[in-house]
This record gives sequence, structure tokens and C-alpha cells, in this order.
Amino acid sequence: MSREQRARIDALLRQPAPAGPRSVAELRAGFDKLMAGMVVPAGIRTHTVTLGDRPAVLVEPPGTARAGTILYFHGGGFVYGSPDTAMSLTGNLVSRTGFRAFSLDYRLAPEHPFPAAIDDALSAYRALLDSGEQPSAIAFAGDSAGGGLTVTTCLAARDAGLPMPAAIVAFSPGLDMTRTGASMDSKAESDPLFTREGLEYTGAMYRAAHDPRQPLLSPAVHADLTGFPPLLLQVGTNEMLLDDSTRLATRATAAGADVILDITADVPHVFQAFAGVLDEADEALDRAALFLGQRIRSRDIGD
Amino acid sequence: MSREQRARIDALLRQPAPAGPRSVAELRAGFDKLMAGMVVPAGIRTHTVTLGDRPAVLVEPPGTARAGTILYFHGGGFVYGSPDTAMSLTGNLVSRTGFRAFSLDYRLAPEHPFPAAIDDALSAYRALLDSGEQPSAIAFAGDSAGGGLTVTTCLAARDAGLPMPAAIVAFSPGLDMTRTGASMDSKAESDPLFTREGLEYTGAMYRAAHDPRQPLLSPAVHADLTGFPPLLLQVGTNEMLLDDSTRLATRATAAGADVILDITADVPHVFQAFAGVLDEADEALDRAALFLGQRIRSRDIGD
Repeated sequence: MSREQRARIDALLRQPAPAGPRSVAELRAGFDKLMAGMVVPAGIRTHTVTLGDRPAVLVEPPGTARAGTILYFHGGGFVYGSPDTAMSLTGNLVSRTGFRAFSLDYRLAPEHPFPAAIDDALSAYRALLDSGEQPSAIAFAGDSAGGGLTVTTCLAARDAGLPMPAAIVAFSPGLDMTRTGASMDSKAESDPLFTREGLEYTGAMYRAAHDPRQPLLSPAVHADLTGFPPLLLQVGTNEMLLDDSTRLATRATAAGADVILDITADVPHVFQAFAGVLDEADEALDRAALFLGQRIRSRDIGD
Repeated sequence: MSREQRARIDALLRQPAPAGPRSVAELRAGFDKLMAGMVVPAGIRTHTVTLGDRPAVLVEPPGTARAGTILYFHGGGFVYGSPDTAMSLTGNLVSRTGFRAFSLDYRLAPEHPFPAAIDDALSAYRALLDSGEQPSAIAFAGDSAGGGLTVTTCLAARDAGLPMPAAIVAFSPGLDMTRTGASMDSKAESDPLFTREGLEYTGAMYRAAHDPRQPLLSPAVHADLTGFPPLLLQVGTNEMLLDDSTRLATRATAAGADVILDITADVPHVFQAFAGVLDEADEALDRAALFLGQRIRSRDIGD
């Protein structure tokens, strides 16, 4: 029934927004409402902790957790969203892998523009390492802007002399604030969520006065990915951000990383959030879970 | 221990070949000997049957098979190889999925040049359909030249008015007889197996007098992939044929197909044949098995 499922989701996401730019408060409330409709898997346990300088939600699987940790970064254009809005995604990764996850409540723009989110993510990673977790037992995962953070936090970690995590999983990552991907235009009609104006509106809050032509704002265009861990990039074809992923995959391959570019046709941005409702979502999450299980090691087993 | 594993395999594949071009008989004997060293999983059962116009080896899993069929095409540049030389690959897909496979003994060049192999593959697919197997329950899989056949047989099937199979799995497929991929030069040093001259030598036997600039000889460059089923392309970065896969992935995405481009760094052509010896091989085969399990349906469950 997937064709029907996809049409229903496309229609849901195309529901008309109020005319004119929405306030930050309206954006946050609207996203909270949309994401509250997603199915969170049964049996996971959550509680709030502190990780580095920020709150985070520790998400644990039913029963005994497998050794290893997912550090999760939620989506929301660096302006909205929270660990709660991504709990369907985080919870599904936890329940399907058996690993625990920390979902980080990083600071948001416009109150805290670039590079606040990256600083918080790096601080959280450092706290995990300081707690004794081996880098080979840690994977970064995230969606949308948080998918971008999986990559930029690795850049920042490398620059800080920290070891790379074991893997990156990014769902529809935002990786290009220059907005130069061909899909920005070619997918404008088929993308039910985004417009160039909308992306620029929140992007400008995060970017503030910074030039987007730099690795930490546009890694798909400007980053040197040398030394990167294996990456799984999952993206739909009904999204303007499609080429953020295709270009990062090309760069990461050229830099010598293992890369899986996993493209699902006719699904929107972060379609994995529709797990339990859309077959493609569940299947993509199962592939992500297998990848995480192959890459996260409970201790260094040599190389 | 994977770094050591990879170095050992690279050295094995770089063993010096006798000087000068080898005869067809020497190529076939040498490949038989190389592939006889691969590990075939325990417990699979094989026997020879007829499928369409050709012999094929039916490979069955231990115990009761899961409903669904893999149609496998072995590698060997269209000049050498057989179902036996690919039995590690076919057997691993069967044992990891539970599906049965038919591994086709298609006709080889130079005795039977293009399009004999495609004709045989199409005839085998038609025979499977005529036997009552639903297209949604059939996947094509293959390695190297046989990976090319997974794609060209779909083209031929579409042109013949047959339905598409449920999925394609291609290990290091050869998809470009024009040999125009950038990796033909950029990977010449790191590829332990191939040279441009060697590829041209066997390629010319298959191509005979045909212009390589056509979809059935160079689908990565010239094929319209409209209507294609989901594809999983697995390839290593130490191979001149890397861009056969990257370009096909781009074309398939543009044509609206689901595509997974799964690139493993620092491994050679058809590294999956080293299952049991190379960790990356086993992990890649597990990903292929999950993909096949997600795509092969025992009956049409609607769309």
C-alpha cells in the first residue's frame, strides 16, 4: 500500500501554512505539533540528563542495552525542534539496534546563532569520551539540520584533535547553506515542505553575519572530509536538499571514506519520521540499524 | 584486523601474471583457480537444471527456502567464469537470505559475443516467469560482467514488454564499454586486478564489431533507466570500474528509481567474494541480504 501511504503523507505536508513569514514562536509551535503526530516505538525509556554543557534525553531500549552509544542531533533548521520532536527517529534507532542514545538539546538560533549548535555538539561528544566511552563505540546520527551536525561536529572534532566516532547516520541532512545544489530548483515542485524562501528565512537566523562558503556551514561544497568515518546518508527524491547528500557522498568517497548513499524515490524530507505509517520509513530505519550494528564496536578490536 | 586482511588480499591479487596476453583457455583456467580459493558457505545444496535455453545451477539454502528467487549472473568479463566460480557469492546470498537462487551458465565470448549473454539472461528470466514465479518475487543479482547483466537484462526485459523484477543487486558491475569513467585513470594504480589493456582485450571479444556507445553495452552512459526497480550497487574504491557504479546511480536516481550506492574504501573489485576472510565482505553481503529481503515479495502485496 505504499503508493497510497506516500500520497497521504505528501498531502499532509502540503497543508497550507498561514500567509507570510511566521514568527519563531509560531515555527516552533507548528513543528512541535507536526512531530507530535509521529509514532514513538513502545518500550523505550527516556530521561533527561546533562551532556557537556547542555541537557540531553537519554533514550534506552527495552531490556538490557547493547554496548555502544548513539549521539543524536534533532532537526529543525537550527531554529526549532528538540529531542522530543525527533523521538520517533531516535527511539526507532534505539529499539531497532539495542544501543542507547543521547539526544542533545543544543542551543537554537536566532537566540544562539552559528556556531553555537556545533559547540554544544562537540561538547557533548567530548563529555561522552571523558566518561570513558570509546570513540569506536559512538556513532553520530541526526536528521535535517541535525544531519548536518553529524558532519560538522566531526569536522570540529577533527580540528580539536579528537578521534572520529565510529560512524555517521544522516537522514536528509542539510549540508549546504550556499543553496547551490541543482535539486534546489529541480525538486522545488515535488518537495512538499520547503521553499527557497523558507530555507533562507531560517538559514539566515542561524548563519547570522557569517559567509556560508565555509566548511562548517556548507560541508557538501567546502569541507575536506579526510579521515571521516563510514557514512550512511539517507535521502528522498522529493526534496530540495537531495543534492546536499549526493554531493557530500561524492566528496566523502574522494576523501577515502566508506559511504552509503541511500536514496528512496518519491518520499519527502526525513521520511523516516513516518515509521509505522510508511513502509519505506521502516525499511530505511532497518537499514540504518544494520549499518549502526556493523560499525559500533563495544571496544577497539583493531584495524 | 581488517587492514591486514585488505593488504593480504591486495597482495594476492597482484601476483604477477605471465607476460603478454593470455589465451582464452589460460584466462578461463586462471580464473577458475583463483575463484576455487573462495569460501562457499556450508549447508547450501546445488544441482544443475535447465533455465530457458541454458544450464543453470539451482542453489538452495539449508532447510526450507523462503518464497522468492534470486537470478544470479556470474562475473568474468563475458569471456570466463561460470556458476561455480561465483558460488561463494551466490551461496552467501542464498544462505544469508533463505531465498533460492538460479545461477545462469550463459554463453561466453569470443565463441558467443554480444548480445548472446543478454539473450540467455532474458530467456532465463522469461522461463522463471513462465514457471509461475511473480516478478515481485524475483531479484537479479550478479558481479562484474554479471552485475552488468543485472542492468542490461532489465533493459532487454522492458523492451520485450516483460515486467521488471523486484530488485537488482550488483557487485562491482561493469556498465561502460566506452571506458570513459574518471576512475579508469584515477584508480589505475590502486586497482590490483585490472589494466585498461586487459579490460579492452576481453571487452573486444564480447563487443565484437558493435559500437560500445549503446545502452546494452554501456548502460552507465547511454541507458534510459525509466521504470527500473530498486538497485543496490556495491563497489570498492580500489577499482577502475568505480565510476561505472557512481554514474549508473546518478542516472537511476534521475530516472526515479530507489538507489543505494554502497561504496567500501580500500577494497578491490568484487571484494564480497572474500567472505569469510575479509570483514568488509561479510558486512556487505549482510547489507545485500537485508535489501533483498526487503524487496523480494512472495506475492504481489499491492503498491
